[in-house]
Amino acid sequence: MTFSIDLPVRFGEIDQAHVVYYPRFFHYFHQAFEEWFGGALGASYADLVVRENIGFPSVKVETEFRKPLRYGDTARVEIELVDLGTRSITCRYKLTRLPDGEISARATITTVAIDNDSFQAIEIPQHWRERFEKFMKE
Amino acid sequence: MTFSIDLPVRFGEIDQAHVVYYPRFFHYFHQAFEEWFGGALGASYADLVVRENIGFPSVKVETEFRKPLRYGDTARVEIELVDLGTRSITCRYKLTRLPDGEISARATITTVAIDNDSFQAIEIPQHWRERFEKFMKE
Amino acid sequence: MTFSIDLPVRFGEIDQAHVVYYPRFFHYFHQAFEEWFGGALGASYADLVVRENIGFPSVKVETEFRKPLRYGDTARVEIELVDLGTRSITCRYKLTRLPDGEISARATITTVAIDNDSFQAIEIPQHWRERFEKFMKE
Amino acid sequence: MTFSIDLPVRFGEIDQAHVVYYPRFFHYFHQAFEEWFGGALGASYADLVVRENIGFPSVKVETEFRKPLRYGDTARVEIELVDLGTRSITCRYKLTRLPDGEISARATITTVAIDNDSFQAIEIPQHWRERFEKFMKE
Repeated sequence: MTFSIDLPVRFGEIDQAHVVYYPRFFHYFHQAFEEWFGGALGASYADLVVRENIGFPSVKVETEFRKPLRYGDTARVEIELVDLGTRSITCRYKLTRLPDGEISARATITTVAIDNDSFQAIEIPQHWRERFEKFMKE
Repeated sequence: MTFSIDLPVRFGEIDQAHVVYYPRFFHYFHQAFEEWFGGALGASYADLVVRENIGFPSVKVETEFRKPLRYGDTARVEIELVDLGTRSITCRYKLTRLPDGEISARATITTVAIDNDSFQAIEIPQHWRERFEKFMKE
Repeated sequence: MTFSIDLPVRFGEIDQAHVVYYPRFFHYFHQAFEEWFGGALGASYADLVVRENIGFPSVKVETEFRKPLRYGDTARVEIELVDLGTRSITCRYKLTRLPDGEISARATITTVAIDNDSFQAIEIPQHWRERFEKFMKE
Repeated sequence: MTFSIDLPVRFGEIDQAHVVYYPRFFHYFHQAFEEWFGGALGASYADLVVRENIGFPSVKVETEFRKPLRYGDTARVEIELVDLGTRSITCRYKLTRLPDGEISARATITTVAIDNDSFQAIEIPQHWRERFEKFMKE
């Protein structure tokens, strides 16, 4: 199963080359990651972070950029869970440029479950593991 | 007395109109505010925030924009403390565009001392009041 | 008439004090401004900027911050056109914090119509003036 | 040879987990890339972009994050040119956390020379090739 959100490119996200500044692609990916929790996993990322005191910082990021985004475009970010480890999850992202439908970027991002206070890796809690598994199977 | 820092305009700070996106001027002002503590008041803003658990959120911001900043320019941000209240300080900012020396923007920003946990206003602690007073007089 | 958009507070928009970094409020206001064109005035801001080569940079910004925004909140930004000059428009913004409905911030922002190439002020073109007038009356 | 810059972590670069929001690491890398041109290659990146109308957008980014950055830390970004192709350059970045000297992140980023108008890849101009070669050998 995949989950996706559409993000219009904003006036202030453009750089000197008149395309979206590439670090902002990672902000797009993170927004998709955040929305994925509330939108498909059944509990918001804010709840996970604020109430359960758990985080999923990125430890490995691989990205390929193919087509630039311009002002007036919309970024469709599709997220797919490709690996569920004891302490980590790996998601694949596809960023499609709308309206022309070209693939703009692809990324594979591994995030590790941590306790927000200690910032140490922890095992993914069972109720979250079940949600991730359910999403992978659907 | 005034305190100033120079910030080169970055490639990614430009907007679709090929000038610095105006919300980033407030990030420039805040960087000057942060540097002012360590650079002129005698203790870093990070220490104030992290160790003393005090913050100075902005409550009132008035800004006038006169000349745009472009890639290749440097923003010189000058900060002047113009009012020291029981719980608040008001700073005036002048942003000069380098190399041509034109005034790009002016702002007056009032910030209130708070306890970071409660986010409630507090009286400015005496050791900070003395630092602010010393800066105003010099 | 007013126009409004809802923007969920993002994980990366928070600052060291655990509230939305205040310069990002201006990014919220600008996103409302951008959406207002396509959503209520009848033509997207991207079209105005890219095809008509016109911009509306901010020249005067007055803001009052009342309540902080935290992760998990949503910013509802309401925009009202309060003045329509020959070359400028002035909008009033109200940012309401959801879900509790508290007013988080208010701003009054004056923007001037410019030719994007020369960056010089121009008269607001008639077809845009009509759109602004229509919005004011409704 | 390597080139490095120091960037203090800013108040507004922190995220909800109280560490630097990871997309901002790419902004740190890009700032190092920009400064590298003026600081070691002999001509500013702004000149390259604005006067020569050439850009170096990122096409491939691989990053490993090891230690978080917190408010009060400084990011030392070291850049090394590891591959010089006909149309592309690949740089390796090491981000060291100061004051404790721990390695916070590593990245390998490939950028392609383009004509800014067409956004098509071009051969790296000879005067730039010589600067890159000189930097690699030193």
